[in-house]
Amino acid sequence: MNMQRTEDTRPETEKETGRVEAFSDGVFAIAITLLVLDLRLPQNVVDSSEAEFFQQLVRLWPQYLAFLGSFAFIGIMWVNHHRLFANITRSDNRLLLFNLLLLLGVTVVPFPTSLLAEKLDGQHGAGLQTAALVYSGLFVVIAIFFNLLWRYASGGGRLLDKNADPVVVRKITQQYMFGPI
Amino acid sequence: MNMQRTEDTRPETEKETGRVEAFSDGVFAIAITLLVLDLRLPQNVVDSSEAEFFQQLVRLWPQYLAFLGSFAFIGIMWVNHHRLFANITRSDNRLLLFNLLLLLGVTVVPFPTSLLAEKLDGQHGAGLQTAALVYSGLFVVIAIFFNLLWRYASGGGRLLDKNADPVVVRKITQQYMFGPI
Amino acid sequence: MNMQRTEDTRPETEKETGRVEAFSDGVFAIAITLLVLDLRLPQNVVDSSEAEFFQQLVRLWPQYLAFLGSFAFIGIMWVNHHRLFANITRSDNRLLLFNLLLLLGVTVVPFPTSLLAEKLDGQHGAGLQTAALVYSGLFVVIAIFFNLLWRYASGGGRLLDKNADPVVVRKITQQYMFGPI
Amino acid sequence: MNMQRTEDTRPETEKETGRVEAFSDGVFAIAITLLVLDLRLPQNVVDSSEAEFFQQLVRLWPQYLAFLGSFAFIGIMWVNHHRLFANITRSDNRLLLFNLLLLLGVTVVPFPTSLLAEKLDGQHGAGLQTAALVYSGLFVVIAIFFNLLWRYASGGGRLLDKNADPVVVRKITQQYMFGPI
Repeated sequence: MNMQRTEDTRPETEKETGRVEAFSDGVFAIAITLLVLDLRLPQNVVDSSEAEFFQQLVRLWPQYLAFLGSFAFIGIMWVNHHRLFANITRSDNRLLLFNLLLLLGVTVVPFPTSLLAEKLDGQHGAGLQTAALVYSGLFVVIAIFFNLLWRYASGGGRLLDKNADPVVVRKITQQYMFGPI
Repeated sequence: MNMQRTEDTRPETEKETGRVEAFSDGVFAIAITLLVLDLRLPQNVVDSSEAEFFQQLVRLWPQYLAFLGSFAFIGIMWVNHHRLFANITRSDNRLLLFNLLLLLGVTVVPFPTSLLAEKLDGQHGAGLQTAALVYSGLFVVIAIFFNLLWRYASGGGRLLDKNADPVVVRKITQQYMFGPI
Repeated sequence: MNMQRTEDTRPETEKETGRVEAFSDGVFAIAITLLVLDLRLPQNVVDSSEAEFFQQLVRLWPQYLAFLGSFAFIGIMWVNHHRLFANITRSDNRLLLFNLLLLLGVTVVPFPTSLLAEKLDGQHGAGLQTAALVYSGLFVVIAIFFNLLWRYASGGGRLLDKNADPVVVRKITQQYMFGPI
Repeated sequence: MNMQRTEDTRPETEKETGRVEAFSDGVFAIAITLLVLDLRLPQNVVDSSEAEFFQQLVRLWPQYLAFLGSFAFIGIMWVNHHRLFANITRSDNRLLLFNLLLLLGVTVVPFPTSLLAEKLDGQHGAGLQTAALVYSGLFVVIAIFFNLLWRYASGGGRLLDKNADPVVVRKITQQYMFGPI
């Protein structure tokens, strides 16, 4: 993978990032939907009454909490990705690489989510602090990847739309100094 | 996430909602396809004859029923989403937020579906009423999210296509007062 | 869901089926990719040598066979879907309904695939004939849905591109009388 | 499936490969996201301290390694696919077939990935060499499919954009003689 512009024979005026966005949308959509697979009752439990089953559903609150948190997390990242690529219209291999790093962060989210849910319910022993650390660590890593992507694409207007509003671009850059989410 | 229009440098005439639709299509498509993962024979069963295996397949009817119901549920929601966004052509952060709430409802569907299937087969004890309540409760919640999205987008024609037919818009609004499905 | 044309305010010349195709592509793509989840070694087996592990991999041949068959099955259905929608450019609610029926068939494929793989390996007792019957029954059902979709869309050129080649249309119709695959 | 051009009534100037790319993007996106399902703690373990839980997370390094490797693998394949289809603008049934073969390779990736992760952790006995062989064998097979696809599409400029830069096309062909990744 060399770092020149992707060898694309389409006219200059067309948006080059269409497939990058389509692929990214796919990854975001799948990662956010896979979260539901962790909403699950313990197997082989036979409930003796409606009330007992209701209790069981209530006891799943750590799963609901982790699910909602990670859904919001991925959803807001998608909104941000959408916002960046509304201004980025050209593409090169380095952009694809930075975007893949970002998507790596996104696809990983279900893993610390399930760690956190497991430790929150208090039935798998100690480890809640570690799980919370891993979860928030992923936030930080993704924040760094977002910054890398945006700074590369916007630096000197490298890959931005020629009509991109400089005020908007500067505003995004400033917000990202304090985290992209 | 502030609530101004997404900072988009594309020409005014272009449809801004392309990526919202693509992302939503992805979530609908995955949620509807993940339902099949709950069609599953009990493990470690050895059938002594074709007839016994056939009996086993028949005993899975609660799974089939829940699968078909939720497939229709998500499918019809997709048709409705499609119909709304045929008229919505502009996008802002609040629309993205309402759309995420709606997609949250969609991604959750497999969970009450599997609860219902489990309780319908009568081998996991009591809880059928609770499961049915949770399942239909999700319907109601999604109906509310659909209304929020549509009323926000159509209010004063805020995000509608400038050529949107007012008769069509009014008709959609009226239908949604009685539920969006 | 009434059966008039989808209330769409976009210009007449634009292809109305874009989102139908995007959603369908998503469902096909997910169904074909989920098949790999059934390629799995039995759990908790410790191999004493490379040769024993290799033997284990070989013993998975029913899984490979079922995987390849269903991959080809879904792949060819996608090619056919692509071919139909190259000629269909307009959309109405009934088309969406027939398309959902077709997608229902597609999403179900992983279920009889795993039934067949399980019975082929001979370790889950009798039932191979029933499993093969279910698998091929699904073929027939999907063939019927393909015909419904195509006959509705092409009947009197109802939803076809105005420039659709009548020879091509007639050829597709003839081929489908003998099954759409 | 006969091998003539897909019977497409759209104007000649339009890119015919839009849906092929959309479907392929979906498959790539799902395969790359499903990898996370193998990042999982052993079940039913109760940790006595934060340190013990941390140790457990560390012991998952074979899973992380296999996950990262396969993520990079699929990601780079997507970049390559993107690059080929930036030059391919026409489509026929044979191209669809070669593309399906390539996607077959992509969807299989999670299987040898989990084999490798399992054997790397040393708790499932012998078989590491066989697992590594299967994993790298898949690389070779996919490389062959990439070559088939590109040589068919580019041979005599068969399916290339009429404005495709011959220097770029020749460069891609040369690189692929040594493997497409």
